[in-house]
Amino acid sequence: MATPGEAPAAALRAVLKPSGPLPAESLPVRGYDFAGGPDHAALLRSFRTTGFQATSFAQAVAEIHRMVGARLRPPSGCTIFLGFTSNLISSGVRETIRYLVQRNMVDVLVTTAGGVEEDLIKCLAPTYIGDFSLRGRDLRQSGINRIGNLLVPNDNYCKFEDWLMPILEQMVEEQETQGTRWTPSRMIARLGKEINHPESVCYWAQKNNIPVLSPALTDGSLGDMIFFHSYKRPGLVLDIVEDLRLINTQAIFARKTGMIILGGGLVKHHIANANLMRNGADFSVYVNTAQEFDGSDSGARPDEAVSWGKIRMDATPVKVYADASLVFPLLVAETFAQRADAFPEGTPGD
Amino acid sequence: MATPGEAPAAALRAVLKPSGPLPAESLPVRGYDFAGGPDHAALLRSFRTTGFQATSFAQAVAEIHRMVGARLRPPSGCTIFLGFTSNLISSGVRETIRYLVQRNMVDVLVTTAGGVEEDLIKCLAPTYIGDFSLRGRDLRQSGINRIGNLLVPNDNYCKFEDWLMPILEQMVEEQETQGTRWTPSRMIARLGKEINHPESVCYWAQKNNIPVLSPALTDGSLGDMIFFHSYKRPGLVLDIVEDLRLINTQAIFARKTGMIILGGGLVKHHIANANLMRNGADFSVYVNTAQEFDGSDSGARPDEAVSWGKIRMDATPVKVYADASLVFPLLVAETFAQRADAFPEGTPGD
Amino acid sequence: MATPGEAPAAALRAVLKPSGPLPAESLPVRGYDFAGGPDHAALLRSFRTTGFQATSFAQAVAEIHRMVGARLRPPSGCTIFLGFTSNLISSGVRETIRYLVQRNMVDVLVTTAGGVEEDLIKCLAPTYIGDFSLRGRDLRQSGINRIGNLLVPNDNYCKFEDWLMPILEQMVEEQETQGTRWTPSRMIARLGKEINHPESVCYWAQKNNIPVLSPALTDGSLGDMIFFHSYKRPGLVLDIVEDLRLINTQAIFARKTGMIILGGGLVKHHIANANLMRNGADFSVYVNTAQEFDGSDSGARPDEAVSWGKIRMDATPVKVYADASLVFPLLVAETFAQRADAFPEGTPGD
Amino acid sequence: MATPGEAPAAALRAVLKPSGPLPAESLPVRGYDFAGGPDHAALLRSFRTTGFQATSFAQAVAEIHRMVGARLRPPSGCTIFLGFTSNLISSGVRETIRYLVQRNMVDVLVTTAGGVEEDLIKCLAPTYIGDFSLRGRDLRQSGINRIGNLLVPNDNYCKFEDWLMPILEQMVEEQETQGTRWTPSRMIARLGKEINHPESVCYWAQKNNIPVLSPALTDGSLGDMIFFHSYKRPGLVLDIVEDLRLINTQAIFARKTGMIILGGGLVKHHIANANLMRNGADFSVYVNTAQEFDGSDSGARPDEAVSWGKIRMDATPVKVYADASLVFPLLVAETFAQRADAFPEGTPGD
Repeated sequence: MATPGEAPAAALRAVLKPSGPLPAESLPVRGYDFAGGPDHAALLRSFRTTGFQATSFAQAVAEIHRMVGARLRPPSGCTIFLGFTSNLISSGVRETIRYLVQRNMVDVLVTTAGGVEEDLIKCLAPTYIGDFSLRGRDLRQSGINRIGNLLVPNDNYCKFEDWLMPILEQMVEEQETQGTRWTPSRMIARLGKEINHPESVCYWAQKNNIPVLSPALTDGSLGDMIFFHSYKRPGLVLDIVEDLRLINTQAIFARKTGMIILGGGLVKHHIANANLMRNGADFSVYVNTAQEFDGSDSGARPDEAVSWGKIRMDATPVKVYADASLVFPLLVAETFAQRADAFPEGTPGD
Repeated sequence: MATPGEAPAAALRAVLKPSGPLPAESLPVRGYDFAGGPDHAALLRSFRTTGFQATSFAQAVAEIHRMVGARLRPPSGCTIFLGFTSNLISSGVRETIRYLVQRNMVDVLVTTAGGVEEDLIKCLAPTYIGDFSLRGRDLRQSGINRIGNLLVPNDNYCKFEDWLMPILEQMVEEQETQGTRWTPSRMIARLGKEINHPESVCYWAQKNNIPVLSPALTDGSLGDMIFFHSYKRPGLVLDIVEDLRLINTQAIFARKTGMIILGGGLVKHHIANANLMRNGADFSVYVNTAQEFDGSDSGARPDEAVSWGKIRMDATPVKVYADASLVFPLLVAETFAQRADAFPEGTPGD
Repeated sequence: MATPGEAPAAALRAVLKPSGPLPAESLPVRGYDFAGGPDHAALLRSFRTTGFQATSFAQAVAEIHRMVGARLRPPSGCTIFLGFTSNLISSGVRETIRYLVQRNMVDVLVTTAGGVEEDLIKCLAPTYIGDFSLRGRDLRQSGINRIGNLLVPNDNYCKFEDWLMPILEQMVEEQETQGTRWTPSRMIARLGKEINHPESVCYWAQKNNIPVLSPALTDGSLGDMIFFHSYKRPGLVLDIVEDLRLINTQAIFARKTGMIILGGGLVKHHIANANLMRNGADFSVYVNTAQEFDGSDSGARPDEAVSWGKIRMDATPVKVYADASLVFPLLVAETFAQRADAFPEGTPGD
Repeated sequence: MATPGEAPAAALRAVLKPSGPLPAESLPVRGYDFAGGPDHAALLRSFRTTGFQATSFAQAVAEIHRMVGARLRPPSGCTIFLGFTSNLISSGVRETIRYLVQRNMVDVLVTTAGGVEEDLIKCLAPTYIGDFSLRGRDLRQSGINRIGNLLVPNDNYCKFEDWLMPILEQMVEEQETQGTRWTPSRMIARLGKEINHPESVCYWAQKNNIPVLSPALTDGSLGDMIFFHSYKRPGLVLDIVEDLRLINTQAIFARKTGMIILGGGLVKHHIANANLMRNGADFSVYVNTAQEFDGSDSGARPDEAVSWGKIRMDATPVKVYADASLVFPLLVAETFAQRADAFPEGTPGD
């Protein structure tokens, strides 16, 4: 039991240390006031002063607005690279990506093999909502593949094989008879043309001459089919050097560049590496759930890319730590979709 | 180079395994279609079929609607426990929580010491938006405290001391002269009454007779002040047994219960443990970023709580893996705020 | 196809930017060389130059050596606070913690209710290794509780009730007849004495006069039993103010302090907050899996604590991002256990 | 205040539910006992019964022992695929990987472009230990690149250019004059031969005829150099189809296969996809920090791969949730290095 007296002076000094001024521009924290009812647009604006990832979201909105603003300034002043991992195409984020591509709002796409094939397969048969905890053994016995909480019947891949095999045959034929030099981006453009489906990202990309880079295009179901087809008719060559020239020159000759990268791994590194060729991107938004502590490129903060010259030293890049399925449709709603009138609408069959 | 022939049969069989039927209720994946422009409400509804955490968000919306529906069924059919860590009160999520409390939409609050004191301090002086990467040494030299990307001038705590000390003096006086038995919840109610400020969660909680449980109420600035005050006038007792009875009986005598738990640690466990007393909560939503692999209660999935009898075996609990600052205002917008007419509005000063 | 020529000069300059000098003390990266066979001690030493969390581990080893070195310098120069969440007591990390306590290697313990009761219950019946994916419904039907990949038969809690109830009865009796003022730390010391078991952390803590702080001691099975007992004999008071004085004065009057904090939530904040009373801990090691992006105290880096004055501005705190079950036994093997001769061994029954 | 009486019966029943039997093989939790001093081997064995990721580590040890046992059973009964992201080669985990490759303990390597080039560059100049919080702008101004807490002077890449350019020239020459069809794996083997350095993973891989697959080999500094060189002498083709045949046939014609995958992204998917060709790997160990909630392949649990037929339905795959820098050297110490006598030692210059 304390006897009446003074609290230890050093403790008082430590706890009651007076403060100096904050930076002049500091904003008070203040969240959305529901008194006026649920106004989504106002609520999302209030994220600026909500803190944590809500604030990061608001900063990403601002960064994309800068990117889009630069892009709309004539002459076309900002080349926007959009990267996304395959799971986002499996998910309903595909519709958001397709919108950006259909409306010519982005300039270069980078994805993995799955990001291509899942887009095509979804034109043939749907993917379904499932659950993260469904058992692998039960699913395999039923021929149902799981992607997180999504389910893809294996029949979808059988349909994909039926659709793809004649195209592969034709591709080898063209290589042999016309000297076509296939690269992943050329193959993806061809597949986009063949699928001829207005829900397809690949369809709109080829239609709008937006290159889709995917240097490891063999790593997925597309690879499986190429592999099987090679037994019937060997010889297809997919060259990744020419695609490298393609992505690098997109970065080098752009007046400004923006990067929007959803997820990690190859798609994140490939876009950033191309932007090293111009001494750094001007505008950058990452959306992913990876952390830096294991030294992975996936988890690296934008500031690591600054050290490499992949993002400009004076840029204001933003990382939002969240699953893109939650965040990216909302980001697009607050940015590109607000400027929709400035973008020409493409039409299937143009 | 392969010679023409057949791909290995076993490989073909593995890749092209036919599939059985999916569960009848399976929904096709389909994201938001921006063709009609950015309609936030429709976009958030589309999360149901978007996959990953977007789908978890939609499931949380549905679970909260069930919870609220049960609560509005007379007689009051569902006691809703809302738990939140202190950082959410530091952030703009405080305004969302205050709305729920002001409108009597929830029944029991559980938070940490910081969740109480930051609410009170914000009535005295603001918290500011900062940055995750500001240096601790520089900040300490300026007397500015960092909470993630938020900044709190230390002067705020000095103001809190000025405000709190006379109240502590009065509390000890009442204990000694009137035999008041102080518990954390009684102290919080008293502080809410004293702060008398319409932006305060604690203010509205005491006004609406919503208990705020915080068994470790000494763990924070409140504790610092109690400690200092104990040198002037020792003897204050804060008893945690009576509060335990309070929270447990809230669970036991409820017809149904719902849990909404933002963040982990004490607030998550304390609500779930109280619900063990009734053999499990009927409705449950967790929003946090913790993972299960380290065996922490923070990261435990709802299914772990089912094993303990803290969630009913036939319940449909949902965990959303995300920072609550991004998710909770949107969750409330899609649930409680849609039913606002059903809840009586409290008025300051009633 | 490029025509022969020069690569773009700006790209060359960006990629081939020359470098300035590194800090003089920079160590080359070099991992363990297995040529000499698997020498664990050498392997763990090589972590210093392995990078990522291996390097963080090595830095934590060095920080703990500094802490222990200060503690062994007479007069007792460093008060070591050890915090741990309950799951670590459920796991085999309990044996490592018990070693530190038995050998008087640490000075103050902070844990949650589960961190106390699981220690006691394990003296009555074992916890088992299970699996993260066992179904909650099946387990509940069998009365088996899951903690990550551990299983605790519910009978263990029944045995705990049998053991605890007479002690609670006695505690109320002493409160009423002898005026005993119960606090969480006094209750834990009493339970440690009653369990009288050499595998118990609580047993050795009371034996060695190491206080165990747990301000929310009612939040768990202990609380359940206190609650049930209160129906038979109401009136037990557990005061958290006196324990606050205890932990704060431990920090204030120490010459130096060290913090070793395993996990997040209350145990992390409570130790750091006490160290604010001395304007910061001198030595700090965090081991946890939480991240800073959601603004939680659990995920806050040590540098955030520097801004608050909870860690000294000139300290060299370390966070290891890993599950403590993997890391803490190895950390102790490389630090305390290397200095075992310097610590007196306690004996059960002394 | 309760009056003496009975606690609510339903609460008692819920809390004191009796338990049924556990699975017969259940092991009691028991951690390492330091009473006998720090015996690392015994400590690591105790992980089996320590719980959480310590137990996962022990399960990974057992799975790798099964893999190695099958491999050593004549005729060569298990093809081991080892995948690793580039950061692990930047780190000191490279020495562990090199050991496995030098000693012919693994059969197929899959890595990213960085996983190849960082191995080669380290033969030219060292990488250094730095800090996660060094500022990108300061580093870029000094020409120092950051990889987590590692630092690579940009001069290292200039040295790499000097070394690589003549080899690229020679490669194009051979393509044009001898009809060499370059693939990533052939190029990597060539670079391994040219570097001729006993610390290089690539050196030992080519020496021991262990293929290194890296389908996106252009995505990194190697790509930068190929790009620059293409201005001097265009025409190099890198075909990814032939490498696809290589990895798939490794899986198809193996009697059994094992997968050890460190990190996520391409390396994880590529190995698993090849193993679909044989209806699943027999043995699998993942070590990474990614989580499943965002539906990424990086974070997918082994059980998701079971649904795809990439892991056998009756297998016992293990995921260790940890940074590989902490875990993989220890895993190798407890597995491959224990069987070192069974593996022939290669000698540089053979």
